[in-house]
Amino acid sequence: MQRIAVLGATGAVGQEFVVSLNKHPWFELTQVASSARSAGKKYIYALRYPASGILKWHKPEPIPEYMQDMVISKIEDIDPEKFDLIFTALNSDDAQTIEPDFARSVPVISTAAAFRYENDVPILIPGINDEHIEILDIQKKNRNWNGFIAPLPNCTTTGLAITLKPIMDKYGVESVFMTSLQALSGAGRSPGVIALDIMDNVIPYIPKEEEKVQIETKKILGELNQTSIVPNNIKVSCTCMRVPVSDGHTESVFVETKESVDPHMIKKEMLKFSKNVSIKELPTAPKDYIIVHDDPTRPQPRIDREINDGMTTVVGRIRKDTVFENGIKYVLLSHNEKMGSAKGAVLLAELLKRKDII
Amino acid sequence: MQRIAVLGATGAVGQEFVVSLNKHPWFELTQVASSARSAGKKYIYALRYPASGILKWHKPEPIPEYMQDMVISKIEDIDPEKFDLIFTALNSDDAQTIEPDFARSVPVISTAAAFRYENDVPILIPGINDEHIEILDIQKKNRNWNGFIAPLPNCTTTGLAITLKPIMDKYGVESVFMTSLQALSGAGRSPGVIALDIMDNVIPYIPKEEEKVQIETKKILGELNQTSIVPNNIKVSCTCMRVPVSDGHTESVFVETKESVDPHMIKKEMLKFSKNVSIKELPTAPKDYIIVHDDPTRPQPRIDREINDGMTTVVGRIRKDTVFENGIKYVLLSHNEKMGSAKGAVLLAELLKRKDII
Amino acid sequence: MQRIAVLGATGAVGQEFVVSLNKHPWFELTQVASSARSAGKKYIYALRYPASGILKWHKPEPIPEYMQDMVISKIEDIDPEKFDLIFTALNSDDAQTIEPDFARSVPVISTAAAFRYENDVPILIPGINDEHIEILDIQKKNRNWNGFIAPLPNCTTTGLAITLKPIMDKYGVESVFMTSLQALSGAGRSPGVIALDIMDNVIPYIPKEEEKVQIETKKILGELNQTSIVPNNIKVSCTCMRVPVSDGHTESVFVETKESVDPHMIKKEMLKFSKNVSIKELPTAPKDYIIVHDDPTRPQPRIDREINDGMTTVVGRIRKDTVFENGIKYVLLSHNEKMGSAKGAVLLAELLKRKDII
Amino acid sequence: MQRIAVLGATGAVGQEFVVSLNKHPWFELTQVASSARSAGKKYIYALRYPASGILKWHKPEPIPEYMQDMVISKIEDIDPEKFDLIFTALNSDDAQTIEPDFARSVPVISTAAAFRYENDVPILIPGINDEHIEILDIQKKNRNWNGFIAPLPNCTTTGLAITLKPIMDKYGVESVFMTSLQALSGAGRSPGVIALDIMDNVIPYIPKEEEKVQIETKKILGELNQTSIVPNNIKVSCTCMRVPVSDGHTESVFVETKESVDPHMIKKEMLKFSKNVSIKELPTAPKDYIIVHDDPTRPQPRIDREINDGMTTVVGRIRKDTVFENGIKYVLLSHNEKMGSAKGAVLLAELLKRKDII
Repeated sequence: MQRIAVLGATGAVGQEFVVSLNKHPWFELTQVASSARSAGKKYIYALRYPASGILKWHKPEPIPEYMQDMVISKIEDIDPEKFDLIFTALNSDDAQTIEPDFARSVPVISTAAAFRYENDVPILIPGINDEHIEILDIQKKNRNWNGFIAPLPNCTTTGLAITLKPIMDKYGVESVFMTSLQALSGAGRSPGVIALDIMDNVIPYIPKEEEKVQIETKKILGELNQTSIVPNNIKVSCTCMRVPVSDGHTESVFVETKESVDPHMIKKEMLKFSKNVSIKELPTAPKDYIIVHDDPTRPQPRIDREINDGMTTVVGRIRKDTVFENGIKYVLLSHNEKMGSAKGAVLLAELLKRKDII
Repeated sequence: MQRIAVLGATGAVGQEFVVSLNKHPWFELTQVASSARSAGKKYIYALRYPASGILKWHKPEPIPEYMQDMVISKIEDIDPEKFDLIFTALNSDDAQTIEPDFARSVPVISTAAAFRYENDVPILIPGINDEHIEILDIQKKNRNWNGFIAPLPNCTTTGLAITLKPIMDKYGVESVFMTSLQALSGAGRSPGVIALDIMDNVIPYIPKEEEKVQIETKKILGELNQTSIVPNNIKVSCTCMRVPVSDGHTESVFVETKESVDPHMIKKEMLKFSKNVSIKELPTAPKDYIIVHDDPTRPQPRIDREINDGMTTVVGRIRKDTVFENGIKYVLLSHNEKMGSAKGAVLLAELLKRKDII
Repeated sequence: MQRIAVLGATGAVGQEFVVSLNKHPWFELTQVASSARSAGKKYIYALRYPASGILKWHKPEPIPEYMQDMVISKIEDIDPEKFDLIFTALNSDDAQTIEPDFARSVPVISTAAAFRYENDVPILIPGINDEHIEILDIQKKNRNWNGFIAPLPNCTTTGLAITLKPIMDKYGVESVFMTSLQALSGAGRSPGVIALDIMDNVIPYIPKEEEKVQIETKKILGELNQTSIVPNNIKVSCTCMRVPVSDGHTESVFVETKESVDPHMIKKEMLKFSKNVSIKELPTAPKDYIIVHDDPTRPQPRIDREINDGMTTVVGRIRKDTVFENGIKYVLLSHNEKMGSAKGAVLLAELLKRKDII
Repeated sequence: MQRIAVLGATGAVGQEFVVSLNKHPWFELTQVASSARSAGKKYIYALRYPASGILKWHKPEPIPEYMQDMVISKIEDIDPEKFDLIFTALNSDDAQTIEPDFARSVPVISTAAAFRYENDVPILIPGINDEHIEILDIQKKNRNWNGFIAPLPNCTTTGLAITLKPIMDKYGVESVFMTSLQALSGAGRSPGVIALDIMDNVIPYIPKEEEKVQIETKKILGELNQTSIVPNNIKVSCTCMRVPVSDGHTESVFVETKESVDPHMIKKEMLKFSKNVSIKELPTAPKDYIIVHDDPTRPQPRIDREINDGMTTVVGRIRKDTVFENGIKYVLLSHNEKMGSAKGAVLLAELLKRKDII
């Protein structure tokens, strides 16, 4: 068993790590750390709001029993030498300073944005750009680290990059317009979105989100050269909105392809890609990497987000676009806290372990 | 005072007509008609669900007092000769057969789609394509009618066409991608969207909606020739979704312009257009035809939909597009039951009356 | 394997039967019947709204594979002789005429109210009033039937009666005040509650609900004499409300006991009752019949309703009442579609089979 | 014009003060104070979330123009001598130390709980216990203050006390069971209830709320003797819950009366009380103090909360109770931020001014 620590274990993403690592066949979560405010408390106590006592636990799954009594450490009290791998669910500012401290000694898989845009740092989606893993070696050399930082993309990028990949491989992609309808859990819980702000409402803005998706999509779909990743030159334009949905980001996508396509072929390519995806045998991998619905009323977040425990990207409404000469449009759904975050990070860890990098 | 009848007065749009005509300075609603099931009942009784007794009245305004005791007629008992104008809020199938019966004798302003796509029928948005009113004369001659049918666009088209108009006039529009986040009231109440289908959910499909918006936008922005309207050759592609919002359609719009633009100029053009719009002095016209927010978190349906009693198109997030060489993107909000439906129809009636066409 | 038919299989409760009988060790669902409108269609097609094509399936579980292609029969085409047991999920009016036709030949377990209030008909909650099962023999003799009708209580009664039972057994119950916050699924889906009626709202009335709970609670907790059930003489007063929650009825209960109680003892009695409940070994029985939380913020419907797959009654906030000299108050949560309806009916069938009555 | 300051002006209640005092005929809001974090900022800037920039303004009314540019002061920089009246919307801990500092010089009307339970402090609801105003004189003498502290009750108490008053006056009240379904705005916005906690959910606990309602109801309905208020000896038991409703507390009430009642008489007494209530002519008083619906589906928060701008207590479902020998049950709705909070405080100020106490 690999020994694991999670930094930032009480927040939304941290909770998902705790669930994803429960009874994991390869990984054992043996220590969790969080902010000074929570340190020294048992995990279950740290999750309560001080005033109301309400438990800040939003998973459908209960808190795993192994965690309830685990005492939260201060981050500075975590000894990297004791672990084979660190998962971090820190905010970007904290990640900026804390992650390198750990990466000096031990591999760090991160859901934070802090290092995503550096030249020797890949943004990894298991099954999509596994070849970018090589850049981790360069990173280690560059920085003289024993470990490395391997960040996941922003949760809104994940489903988009996954669905673009088979289209790009077969037909080439010229440009992409995407409007996201993002779930509340993507905003975390500290305090995240307050109920009075979103009930019967849409908020048409999520700070920095659009820029992240635009840059990350190009990097993930980019090519590896000797020393870095050359971003793909597809053009991407996004508008990101918050809607009153608990989990699951829905995205409306318009894609201009380089070659002529018909919607049936896109479905076929997505399913073929799904069937042959590299990560199929890993413990956390879903039975279906991509599902494509013919039913035009799907995907719907409430119905489709938990399919294969949130690890499947669900696609529907694939049809010919009416603006582009060569183009299609479709709708996708991706679980922002599972495949798009902590559970996707666990999948990445499994991939890295299979490749003997961890 | 013009004597008015409303056909289909108990449904969602019919209710909005009843509110919009309350204490109107020019129009007096003297008779309402509805389906056989409601005919013969007092208006307030016809609005109750048979089983639960719950009142199907969803406006923030109470039922106007003049309406509570008005007895609903059968449509076939309405004598067109007694009216100066008929508003219809029928479904499209009923409108197909009923509206011509009335148009033979009297002007009909309709929120139904039945006649929108016929050559001698304009789709009118007051202030946007007033010159298309001329086609009503051709319609009367063609069909040998004393009246005419003047339909409004689909509620999702309204805000899009209104915001494209000033951009088109100044910079030309090449193509448009639009994703809508549509309110529940747009689906009516018979039964409309049931709560279990939409709570904590998004439904990514509204039957026929996308085609309507794509065709209507081109026709509204088209040019009048001698005998018909030549659709504008802008290209439009839409994806229409239902979200858990009671009123107010939010739309994410990406626009390719013919000429180079900068976002500040778009705002300026929209406000100039708003200031000079033709319909400013009409009783139902809003103080602001278009409002443009600099605050990136606006427009929001719950906060912005009732501005100027739902007659203002609210725009925000105007910024340079990252795909188009010449292009911008923005978010708009339009009240689907007010400017986008019954109240917009009353505004159209006012415009036609000022032009002595009613 | 017992051969089973479900009447009314497409509605909310019918869907729950379909899920509850999936892979059941004793029961095999071999035929389903529904209204004339659905008959002749495959199950999955009958579940779609005609206009929008949206699937009326609201369970978190997918439609079981064995059901998707099953063709729905007309009720009159069901031959009772072919079945060991009929489950009905009909509305009360249909049940009134249809259930006796089947009960002549075969046992009928019903979620409808039609026969609940007849003298020789018990209202059964497995584990609470198993001794009332004897009355089924009297019913068969009275009516000269080979089968019988065994109805479940109204879904709002279930959790109340379950929690009152251990209190009554130990301390006696004098009177009960109960206010329910009922879930949308309790209103079914034809059309059930429409979203515009309940979003950001409470509806303080559910027709006939309060009377049902008041009468049924007394009957369930009543005593069997030779020929009928003598209702318990506890006094019950209810106010039933609808809230924007998908599943799970929450109830605020104030109980006057005959003897002095303290809240800790109530918890102890409930847990003791739960531990010794008669139905523990049945396939559909939950691991815990009753759970009692000390955390004052529980039970919450979203967090607690799926515990033990919706078969557990979850109690919290047990505390001394401030009006009654002898009394307590508490909050309970019961899954209205699982323990309170179809899945509770399957549990009842299991109990009857173990007693060789089916 | 009286010169007014509001302490705690940026929170939920503070915002309501700002709206309620807009264009007030007697009161002019000339200075606002808030926490150190907001002090020195313009009001509109202080309302933004630091990270997202979203405006924390939840009223349907826009921010009044007079306020947008007003700069927020530190509380310690407010000179009491410059004001005729101070409204405070502080949390209870701050109120404990700050309110006396001001009351030394100037009348303070407070929505905080800090002083409600002291002997020489009345809990005032205009129109219900105006005679308790006399105790303010005793308070001034006791404490050697030029001003006084006059608190409003908890927002959940208000509607309950208002509806009990006419029942008590005519029939006497023995005991009361109340279950509340409370709106989100009652929890404020710092951060209040987060969306993920309450969507599709009920939280059956609000810390300290039940005790407040139980104690305050008795004090408000109590009698004045020479030096203090003797609480009424009615017995009250409450369970307070949070539901996903933005504004408006719904309460299910069971009342045991001393004398025999019939529900029609209760309605009559409530309306008679409403018609003759003392505060009818005040600027902020509603046209109807109490409205009683015969329609069993009312009151509903979304439909009824804004009646008379939130100052009316709306009652429905009055019917005979089935437990009490003499008793009724009913449902009430009270706007927690208007009559139940800031706007009720303005009404109280008007009453005190009419009595020349301010």
